[in-house]
Amino acid sequence: MDFSSFCTSLGTSFLIFFVLMILFAILQSKPGNNVVYYPNRILKGLEPFEGGVKTRNPFSWIKEAFSSSEQDIIAVSGVDTAVYFVFQSTVFSILVICGIILLPVLLPIAITAAGGKKTQTTSKGTFNELDQLSMGNITAKSTRLWAFFIACYWVSLVSLFLLWKAYKHVTWLRSEAFKTPDLKPEQFAIVVRDIPPVPEGQTRKEQVDSYFRAIYPETFYRSMIITDNKKVNKIWEELEGFKKKLIRAETVFADSKTTAKPEGTRPTNKTGWLGLIGKKVDSIEYYNEKINELVAKLESEQKITLKEKQQNAAIIFFSNRVVAASAAQSLHAQTVDKWSVFGAPEPCQLLWPNLKIKYFEREVRQYVVYFIVALAIFFYMIPITFVSAFTTLKNLVKILPFLKPIVKLGTLRTILEAYLPQLALIIFLALLPKLLMFLSRLEGIPTESHVARAAAGKYFYFTVLNVFIGVTLGGTLFKTFKQIQNKPKDIVPVLAASLPGNATFFLTFVALKFFVGYGLELSRLVPLIIFHLKRKYVCKTEAEVKEAWAPGDLSYATRIPSDMLIVTIVLCYSVIAPLIIPFGALYFGLGWLVLRNQALKVYVPAYESYGRMWPHINNRILASLILYQITMFGYFGVQKFYYAPLLIPLPILSLLFGFVCAKRFYPSFENQALEVAAAEVKEVPNMELIFRSFIPPSLSSEKIDDDQFEDARSEVSRQTSFV
Amino acid sequence: MDFSSFCTSLGTSFLIFFVLMILFAILQSKPGNNVVYYPNRILKGLEPFEGGVKTRNPFSWIKEAFSSSEQDIIAVSGVDTAVYFVFQSTVFSILVICGIILLPVLLPIAITAAGGKKTQTTSKGTFNELDQLSMGNITAKSTRLWAFFIACYWVSLVSLFLLWKAYKHVTWLRSEAFKTPDLKPEQFAIVVRDIPPVPEGQTRKEQVDSYFRAIYPETFYRSMIITDNKKVNKIWEELEGFKKKLIRAETVFADSKTTAKPEGTRPTNKTGWLGLIGKKVDSIEYYNEKINELVAKLESEQKITLKEKQQNAAIIFFSNRVVAASAAQSLHAQTVDKWSVFGAPEPCQLLWPNLKIKYFEREVRQYVVYFIVALAIFFYMIPITFVSAFTTLKNLVKILPFLKPIVKLGTLRTILEAYLPQLALIIFLALLPKLLMFLSRLEGIPTESHVARAAAGKYFYFTVLNVFIGVTLGGTLFKTFKQIQNKPKDIVPVLAASLPGNATFFLTFVALKFFVGYGLELSRLVPLIIFHLKRKYVCKTEAEVKEAWAPGDLSYATRIPSDMLIVTIVLCYSVIAPLIIPFGALYFGLGWLVLRNQALKVYVPAYESYGRMWPHINNRILASLILYQITMFGYFGVQKFYYAPLLIPLPILSLLFGFVCAKRFYPSFENQALEVAAAEVKEVPNMELIFRSFIPPSLSSEKIDDDQFEDARSEVSRQTSFV
Repeated sequence: MDFSSFCTSLGTSFLIFFVLMILFAILQSKPGNNVVYYPNRILKGLEPFEGGVKTRNPFSWIKEAFSSSEQDIIAVSGVDTAVYFVFQSTVFSILVICGIILLPVLLPIAITAAGGKKTQTTSKGTFNELDQLSMGNITAKSTRLWAFFIACYWVSLVSLFLLWKAYKHVTWLRSEAFKTPDLKPEQFAIVVRDIPPVPEGQTRKEQVDSYFRAIYPETFYRSMIITDNKKVNKIWEELEGFKKKLIRAETVFADSKTTAKPEGTRPTNKTGWLGLIGKKVDSIEYYNEKINELVAKLESEQKITLKEKQQNAAIIFFSNRVVAASAAQSLHAQTVDKWSVFGAPEPCQLLWPNLKIKYFEREVRQYVVYFIVALAIFFYMIPITFVSAFTTLKNLVKILPFLKPIVKLGTLRTILEAYLPQLALIIFLALLPKLLMFLSRLEGIPTESHVARAAAGKYFYFTVLNVFIGVTLGGTLFKTFKQIQNKPKDIVPVLAASLPGNATFFLTFVALKFFVGYGLELSRLVPLIIFHLKRKYVCKTEAEVKEAWAPGDLSYATRIPSDMLIVTIVLCYSVIAPLIIPFGALYFGLGWLVLRNQALKVYVPAYESYGRMWPHINNRILASLILYQITMFGYFGVQKFYYAPLLIPLPILSLLFGFVCAKRFYPSFENQALEVAAAEVKEVPNMELIFRSFIPPSLSSEKIDDDQFEDARSEVSRQTSFV
Repeated sequence: MDFSSFCTSLGTSFLIFFVLMILFAILQSKPGNNVVYYPNRILKGLEPFEGGVKTRNPFSWIKEAFSSSEQDIIAVSGVDTAVYFVFQSTVFSILVICGIILLPVLLPIAITAAGGKKTQTTSKGTFNELDQLSMGNITAKSTRLWAFFIACYWVSLVSLFLLWKAYKHVTWLRSEAFKTPDLKPEQFAIVVRDIPPVPEGQTRKEQVDSYFRAIYPETFYRSMIITDNKKVNKIWEELEGFKKKLIRAETVFADSKTTAKPEGTRPTNKTGWLGLIGKKVDSIEYYNEKINELVAKLESEQKITLKEKQQNAAIIFFSNRVVAASAAQSLHAQTVDKWSVFGAPEPCQLLWPNLKIKYFEREVRQYVVYFIVALAIFFYMIPITFVSAFTTLKNLVKILPFLKPIVKLGTLRTILEAYLPQLALIIFLALLPKLLMFLSRLEGIPTESHVARAAAGKYFYFTVLNVFIGVTLGGTLFKTFKQIQNKPKDIVPVLAASLPGNATFFLTFVALKFFVGYGLELSRLVPLIIFHLKRKYVCKTEAEVKEAWAPGDLSYATRIPSDMLIVTIVLCYSVIAPLIIPFGALYFGLGWLVLRNQALKVYVPAYESYGRMWPHINNRILASLILYQITMFGYFGVQKFYYAPLLIPLPILSLLFGFVCAKRFYPSFENQALEVAAAEVKEVPNMELIFRSFIPPSLSSEKIDDDQFEDARSEVSRQTSFV
């Protein structure tokens, strides 16, 4: 890629961003779009705009984003979102502090170097203005390398210092969130798994109750046995589906009562497959019939589930926060594969089907999944290498000669050349998250937020290994393949040597990501179009409309790894091609601003894990930092800089930092500190409400109420516990 | 070493053992020696022999040892001792089961081999009958190697299976011990360290009390602030010393009142250095004066200590076992370097001076000590290599020519030749434990038993690295030094190749250890002589006599690592020279028998850690097993056995086993399972007594009693807690 195509890429990216911004300014002021641009505020029962002024400055969102405090974010969107902003602002600060020093110092040093070593430049072999600004322009063994050497230390030390501060801050955020006096049901409960087989003559409920009552005679409140809800869930979903259809049919019927035809047309449907075949029936009658049928079925299935489908896991409720927090951290049985406990998550986060998996099965599943993911990471390397090798225009024309006339058009050619490799990459990456979420769920992880973290971890390693290392090596792989084959240990120098050649590729990648990515994010063009289409052609009832604009959450499982990829790229190139730093800073600065707006007004968090994501974020930034330090070590070796071994303390320091963080901060993320749990609660907890909040919707209904759950409670419990 | 010197060595060892046994049979029946041979029974207030029969069979101790059950051992000597016997019997069973298969199969295969490869035999190059029984006699690439290959698997699988059973059994022993209804003060207390600085306007006591009262409003009983007792301990020891001297002087005075001289001679002493210089004074008066002086001094120092020398650590008492067990496992503060807790050990085990060391200092100290120990291990290698190279008679004669006439005496020469290398080794090893205990204490470890474990770990790595690997390599080091220097990776094949050559050396070493070692152990010749000398020439008072026969404990810190060395040696040679197996089995069989007697009748355990030693024992047996598997892999390589890589699964399996054990069993050794702590207690705990049991002797005296400790207790505590 030469300089002009780089500028074209940057220019078009910015143009797209500019257009999207204008679109956003126009669209967001239309009241009909409020549900797309302000769903979080609407769901919270607030006015879309503050002050409720109708005509407002199209750029006032920027002011609002800047003026919002961390506490506002926590109040509106929870601690997890606040922690995400800590991540963005930390990386932003790292890049700004590094850029202030590195840019004015390293760029002049690089430009004025003897330079022009054509062999180390892009894969195409053309040398351009951009490459003059990078470390590739420095002659080997030059004393100028000392400046780059010191820069390595500066970037590392700044990163570690800010990461330490951030970890401290997040720990504080977490403890403050736990200390708030409002009642959180999950603070009064623990989940116990691996319950041994029921002894003769006892029910599961009796077994669990007597076990915990013996240990916590005063504070044990009640237990809820986990059941296999597969069948009851299915019936319940079917029932809910028919209920929606009934409302829809009634709305259609009501709408059809025009003044011309006051009796209306009763809607009909066919009972067969997809409503296309089978007998034609009156919809309202048919659905009512179906609903009655299913309600009875659900009721009997609920009874069966509660009585007969009890699993070897339970939720235990305590009347005291401290006891629950302490119980969640304590070993209950002599061996860990019996009565193993963990602190309960929010009720909605609990993955019931995973709770019954036994200890050793969980362990085995985990390693099997790791193995599959490792396989996936290494074998996806092959297609991505081909993608990166073929998606240059020259190659495409060779393979598909009919493209030749298109390529001859000057501008189009430049645009295509600029975007083709990046687009292929982005599309490719969009296919993965679902698979990784599915695999993480297979591990037997018991909570939603943990699944998201596990998937994010896999995705991170995937992107870093395949995109960063894959593309870097891929560009030079064909020529260096033999070299690596002969000496596999040479992968670090080969990787390091091919870094400068790919600098412009990644520069464009980062620019594309933030201009187009955040432009689309802010303008919400896709959700807007989908919403309007749905409202016009599909939705009949109000519930359906509401469903159509439901905003979703920030989906950390994919958002964080893709930010992490940028962190890795920018860190690794920060010293080699310092020009990437302002792009990285822009990415995180713009990201902070845009997502601040989205968090305040659009996204509704699906769960709250009180910042448990942070240790993972911290560790992955560290991993990127270590990758950067190792590649720098390799690159200094390639440049024949004899003092390169002086860089060895850096990765050691980073590892030590990670170790100290894990020792010092991590325990309070894994467990809840008792001094925090002992903070005053606003009100006397209503244990009955807390208990009910954990009943899944398919098992709770107006009718079955207390009596049904009594069946799943032991006689002992019924007699002695106060309800 | 040739065959005849091996036989001589074995013969003399056995002779010594036989003599010692006879001595024991004679000496133990003399009533005057009862305090040496039955101190544990006497201290427990039992008759020395069961049934109290005076004339008894000199071998009845064997019957008694065999008929004693595990429960007897626990009752007499505690769980730690029982766990030690589990270790001995487990290793014994492993060796017996391996021996039954390996001896009849491998020995004939080795003898009938084409054999006689002189290059692979002992360092002296003479080939003898013993080497014909080893794997060294098999020609390279022979199909006979398959038998040895299968033997490798057999030994490994038997070891792992029995280790698993033993771990299960020890876990059960531990839980049973905790479940006993008798009151253990340590089950009601936790120790908290790293208390933050005292806030303005509060005392340390108030700070601690209010912190724990907030978390445990109902079960918190009282706290005891750790103080710096250095000065008060010194005064107290001085006082105790003078008290003893006073009694001694009084006894001397009473003894001097003979009928001839009824007024007696008042004993005198000099006040200066060691009682040798200075003014001559009347002892009884002088000591009384000193005691009165010191009592006053002690009292005022106690007050100062309790008020002004409070440290940042405390013992917290709870009125409930489950709460204490749960509290010991829970995170109290957000960061681990504040309010860090652990379950209290027995009062006598707590190392007060180490409790004040702060979290990060502890971490740093630990790594510094590890580093020092690593240095010690690697630099002791140099002297031991010389020891092993020089302590052959030929070398000694070369260096010390005046030894020549001695060497010419046939039998003496054989004996010397047999013992010299082993004796050097044994003396050398005797110097170490003190240093290692001191170093472990420096780490900041808070309990005695943990210090013993830490020292045992260091000692194990020391002996294995220096004795086993050092001697093995040492014998061949001079010739192979260049080889290793050129390719450090070759250490495994070099080690493996030099194994068979040293087989007889280690055979003799094991034989010497069990015959002479256990002979001395059982006959207690050294303590007996010391006791009689002391009683005759030193002891005047009854307390002094009692002190002279105080039996001490089993001192696991040195006993277990030296057993472990035998385990390592026997395992590593089990397949190469199967003849070592019966010797190993004898070592552990005889050890079991002799120590059973000693545990029942002699040693008094200094502390009880409820089998916490076991995970360490288990891991070290595993380490030996892995060392064995790796050297076998190397040795099969030396024998050019192409299927050697099929041994690779073995170390992986061992590592996996260790990992599973750590996951499954270890948590209940680190923490107390709540279901165990919830077991019924016999009586309502007298919290005051429990509290008092933790007061160190130097701080408790008849006079200062409650009032003094009240000073260190907060006002809050005095008002609300029931005493």
